[in-house]
Amino acid sequence: MIPGIHPLRVVMVAPRNPLNIGAAARAMSNFGCLDLRLVNPYEIAFREAKSAVKAHKVLEDAREYPTLGEAVADCALVVGTTSIGHRVPEHPLRRLELGGRLIARKLATAPVALLFGSEKFGLSNDDMSHCNWLMRIPTREEHGSMNLGQAVAVCLYEIVRNPAAAKVKPSVRRAVAAGDLERMTATLKEILEHSGYMHERVEGSSELKLRRMIRRMNLDTRDAQVWLGMLRQIRWKLLS
Amino acid sequence: MIPGIHPLRVVMVAPRNPLNIGAAARAMSNFGCLDLRLVNPYEIAFREAKSAVKAHKVLEDAREYPTLGEAVADCALVVGTTSIGHRVPEHPLRRLELGGRLIARKLATAPVALLFGSEKFGLSNDDMSHCNWLMRIPTREEHGSMNLGQAVAVCLYEIVRNPAAAKVKPSVRRAVAAGDLERMTATLKEILEHSGYMHERVEGSSELKLRRMIRRMNLDTRDAQVWLGMLRQIRWKLLS
Repeated sequence: MIPGIHPLRVVMVAPRNPLNIGAAARAMSNFGCLDLRLVNPYEIAFREAKSAVKAHKVLEDAREYPTLGEAVADCALVVGTTSIGHRVPEHPLRRLELGGRLIARKLATAPVALLFGSEKFGLSNDDMSHCNWLMRIPTREEHGSMNLGQAVAVCLYEIVRNPAAAKVKPSVRRAVAAGDLERMTATLKEILEHSGYMHERVEGSSELKLRRMIRRMNLDTRDAQVWLGMLRQIRWKLLS
Repeated sequence: MIPGIHPLRVVMVAPRNPLNIGAAARAMSNFGCLDLRLVNPYEIAFREAKSAVKAHKVLEDAREYPTLGEAVADCALVVGTTSIGHRVPEHPLRRLELGGRLIARKLATAPVALLFGSEKFGLSNDDMSHCNWLMRIPTREEHGSMNLGQAVAVCLYEIVRNPAAAKVKPSVRRAVAAGDLERMTATLKEILEHSGYMHERVEGSSELKLRRMIRRMNLDTRDAQVWLGMLRQIRWKLLS
């Protein structure tokens, strides 16, 4: 979805801390979600966040709503975030891994609102009644509650995350030719003989070990050339 | 991997802002990564972060190292984070989606270090030379650089993220019986006739529309009972 801009609305309900509002706006800008909506924010916090030196365009364009209902009126799906402690049996609760997929799919055809409650109280039961379902970040039970700005960043990342990018791409390394590896093996063997590391008694098996070890290095062409240069220089010094 | 504790080492190189150190520690605690290492931190920042009211155990246990080499000495894989702007052709650069998977796989058998540079300069070329590869969060080009605490949170989330949790689980909703839906249809039809919404002329096709509409509501048993109760009450009021 990146670098496109997409129709996710991030809705912060009654945020209190200007740093958190600013952090949420920054993460939104990072991930290309530019529509920030604040429901009933603490006026001072909102003003301070807007006037911060590094305020983002997201924050300048943020809109304020008196009620949550008005803030999400144009959204076809409304999802509330909650920490583990906040289980609300009246609502389906989904982990971010699944919830993020469902939101990304819905965003392809319609606007979606993602709700974050205040730092202190989270979303109220009244707020949650506006939600189609709730979503939680899979934090550990002993310490479930995340910082608000970090929670926004993590949720947005999961939503814009590209599952296809997790697959390993074919390597673009230039594979080294066996001849170069064999030249390395021979040069290193000479060096080891001259420096007394390799004993004649076991020379045969040692050479095999060397050859296998050098293949295990999994070198590309460039590094193989560097190694060969270093080894040749060492050999020259030893024999001179 | 949650709620287990795992052998990831988060290494912050020369962090300057105590709020960022604290935020990183909090995210680590949230995701069960408890081993924080600081290389050459600004002393004042480290002291301030440790003395903060909400300092986490992660921060209390954080260790300080004079050099990056010492901080990662026990790690079998060292990964540096970088923003898009910081392309370093000498290193393979992987997107977080893939990098996170590779780190999670390695963590099953060995300790891994994940490096974050200073807020201002990121990782230096010298820092990067300790890395097996680099990783970037897929932010948009126009605004690639993330807040440090948020970047730590997003990377840790991807590493502890459970891909299996993204699959839709079979629904646990108690499916409603067709008989209840038909009772709803009949009751609503009676109400609509009595209130003059449904005209006799089109009654046949209207009933089919109603029946289909009620099936599209995708109700569970409980909601169907509530609807039936409401409709019966309305019919009683209309006819009384």
